[in-house]
Amino acid sequence: MKFSKKAMGIAPSLTLGIDTLSKEMKAQGMDVVSFGVGEPDFDTPDYIKEAAKAAIDRGCTKYTPVPGVMDLRKAIAKRYQQVYGLEYEATGVVVSNGAKQSLFNVFQAILDPGDEVLIISPYWVTYPELVKMANGVPVIVEAKEEDDFQPNIQALEAAVTPNTRAIIINNPSNPCGNVYSKEVLTDIAELAKKYDLVIVADEIYDVLSYQKKIVSIATISEDAKQRTVIINGMSKAYAMTGWRMGYTLSDPALAKVMSSYQSHSTSNPSSVSQYAALAALEGPQDDMDDMIKVFEKRAELIYTLLNDIPGVVCRMPAGAFYVLPNVKSAIGKSYKGTKIENTIQLAELLLKEKLVAVVPGEAFGAMGYMRLSYATSEENIRKGVGRLKEFFAELN
Amino acid sequence: MKFSKKAMGIAPSLTLGIDTLSKEMKAQGMDVVSFGVGEPDFDTPDYIKEAAKAAIDRGCTKYTPVPGVMDLRKAIAKRYQQVYGLEYEATGVVVSNGAKQSLFNVFQAILDPGDEVLIISPYWVTYPELVKMANGVPVIVEAKEEDDFQPNIQALEAAVTPNTRAIIINNPSNPCGNVYSKEVLTDIAELAKKYDLVIVADEIYDVLSYQKKIVSIATISEDAKQRTVIINGMSKAYAMTGWRMGYTLSDPALAKVMSSYQSHSTSNPSSVSQYAALAALEGPQDDMDDMIKVFEKRAELIYTLLNDIPGVVCRMPAGAFYVLPNVKSAIGKSYKGTKIENTIQLAELLLKEKLVAVVPGEAFGAMGYMRLSYATSEENIRKGVGRLKEFFAELN
Repeated sequence: MKFSKKAMGIAPSLTLGIDTLSKEMKAQGMDVVSFGVGEPDFDTPDYIKEAAKAAIDRGCTKYTPVPGVMDLRKAIAKRYQQVYGLEYEATGVVVSNGAKQSLFNVFQAILDPGDEVLIISPYWVTYPELVKMANGVPVIVEAKEEDDFQPNIQALEAAVTPNTRAIIINNPSNPCGNVYSKEVLTDIAELAKKYDLVIVADEIYDVLSYQKKIVSIATISEDAKQRTVIINGMSKAYAMTGWRMGYTLSDPALAKVMSSYQSHSTSNPSSVSQYAALAALEGPQDDMDDMIKVFEKRAELIYTLLNDIPGVVCRMPAGAFYVLPNVKSAIGKSYKGTKIENTIQLAELLLKEKLVAVVPGEAFGAMGYMRLSYATSEENIRKGVGRLKEFFAELN
Repeated sequence: MKFSKKAMGIAPSLTLGIDTLSKEMKAQGMDVVSFGVGEPDFDTPDYIKEAAKAAIDRGCTKYTPVPGVMDLRKAIAKRYQQVYGLEYEATGVVVSNGAKQSLFNVFQAILDPGDEVLIISPYWVTYPELVKMANGVPVIVEAKEEDDFQPNIQALEAAVTPNTRAIIINNPSNPCGNVYSKEVLTDIAELAKKYDLVIVADEIYDVLSYQKKIVSIATISEDAKQRTVIINGMSKAYAMTGWRMGYTLSDPALAKVMSSYQSHSTSNPSSVSQYAALAALEGPQDDMDDMIKVFEKRAELIYTLLNDIPGVVCRMPAGAFYVLPNVKSAIGKSYKGTKIENTIQLAELLLKEKLVAVVPGEAFGAMGYMRLSYATSEENIRKGVGRLKEFFAELN
């Protein structure tokens, strides 16, 4: 069977690949420490589970409106009003099968063939693929480690062409673990206004900002709000990855186009998950506060341990649950006679020789770095980083 | 904000539109009888609900592999082995957020821009949109009422061009309510072989065939099986519409491409729904048998009552839960001074004047017909068709 050029041009996800491989090795009884996975290691809080079970008993198992039940859309709008002071119509909310589908819908709704989208690297692995799936062109602009991975506004402006249609901001960032400053967000909002760009603001990790609340770029100005689509969901903040609940907040006109697209591509997301999400937003938020404290403690631990390895330089994460240490010192060195040419090879050696799963920087457009998720226990962090330390000591 | 040409070219679903409008009218206290909705009016069986609740308690609330958990993929392959004697690898199964997404994935995986897909009319409303969403071109071939809506093979062959890539078969059919004969399926399989077409076999209503089991086109020959993608799901057979569980069975190579596409567009469908689906396939199938008997009884009732209306001609449905009566006699007549130009107008008048919701044939490429779903009580069928009879008597 012959496949479409577009489908064949989609790169399989390196992060999912590493995750699958490390799970297979664990299933074979191997003592793998995985820093690969992008989901909280907490269980969905009980009050959410109970609400889902009650919804099943009530028979909330039928089709719902495509963009989600109105109570959930209202609760999402209310959350952004309460947390950020942003006013959105409930009709500006579209609920989807995970924030991935929310992003997918946005690009299908706004991109014509050849339209360009600015993506700041290191970037989340799926962004360039989502743009390509909408026949668009990803344009990568590098943010430098020495700038705390905040993008340089001159570099962004230099990448703008008459075909530029949108810019993606991931705040807090996967894989960098940084949080955008208000100054940078203001500059981006001005750039977007100057060139009439749509701002795709992926705030899926917004709750996981340790020092202070993030600034949502939609709060910068009324113009910024008008041209922004906010992406968020329940996966990371409420440990609800499997339930697949993502959402957008935007102008109702864009919501309508995305909803129409979704009406033919997948219809509504799971009705049971929608009622679980509604309970999550309306319920007590204490579990979430406890979870954030645990992540912050782990962030400090992994930061300290990684920087204790000669040849590894790691920035203190400010949000999400990832660190992206610089391991360029290992490139060109050898491990037991194998010369290390790039971070893909480094990650393969770490998995094979030390049973430690990390995601190589190439997945994020950042050769010379590797991403570690610290959504795992302190014990695992100590054990896994200990093995990394051994590995680096054995390089020559 | 400017939207993409493709997204703006997607027609909003007329069936969903009618359904939403009739629900709004009901919510306002109006006594609407709805024949618009395409979902069983039964509740999801208790053993499925209990299994879902148990999965929630066990913490099956995390990411799963993108194409679904392996036990579910195996159970789906096993079902097609047991019911149709078809052997599929579990790796040839991809589970998605409803059969709609399964279809969406197929066309994204196989269509290049300009590729044509043969669609037999009257067709399910979403098929042409799915083809357009993959930059393909829907080519409509009419099946005639006097042929029991079975397609004419010469007409199909006449529509083939060098760009023809696939043909969609919906068996049993929404909106026609017919079941394809083995002879017609054999002819279609030969045509597909002759012109090297992919057969997209949508069997979402396969259980709802009243007189005898349907023939799956993949059983016609080994060649037919190789070029067929079977689409099915849990919605109709197990009254699980809200859970959003669709699946494909195909060659593992195609499954891999679709899974890769899904990995970036939505990731796995709901983990909770997956365990509900697994329980549904492994559990007792008695509830389903009871449901089928009820639908068959309703089919006879609505068939008899509709044919009792002067000016309405209706074929006895053989499967699914739809009838598509011919109401061409009403076109050109007037109701209370309003001349009826088409079936959209007829449906609007029926909803406004008689509080009966039907879907006009235009939604299915079949002006002069209207679709009634009999997934509603006998009482509603009597009341609603009674109102139709009044309406037709008042035409002049």
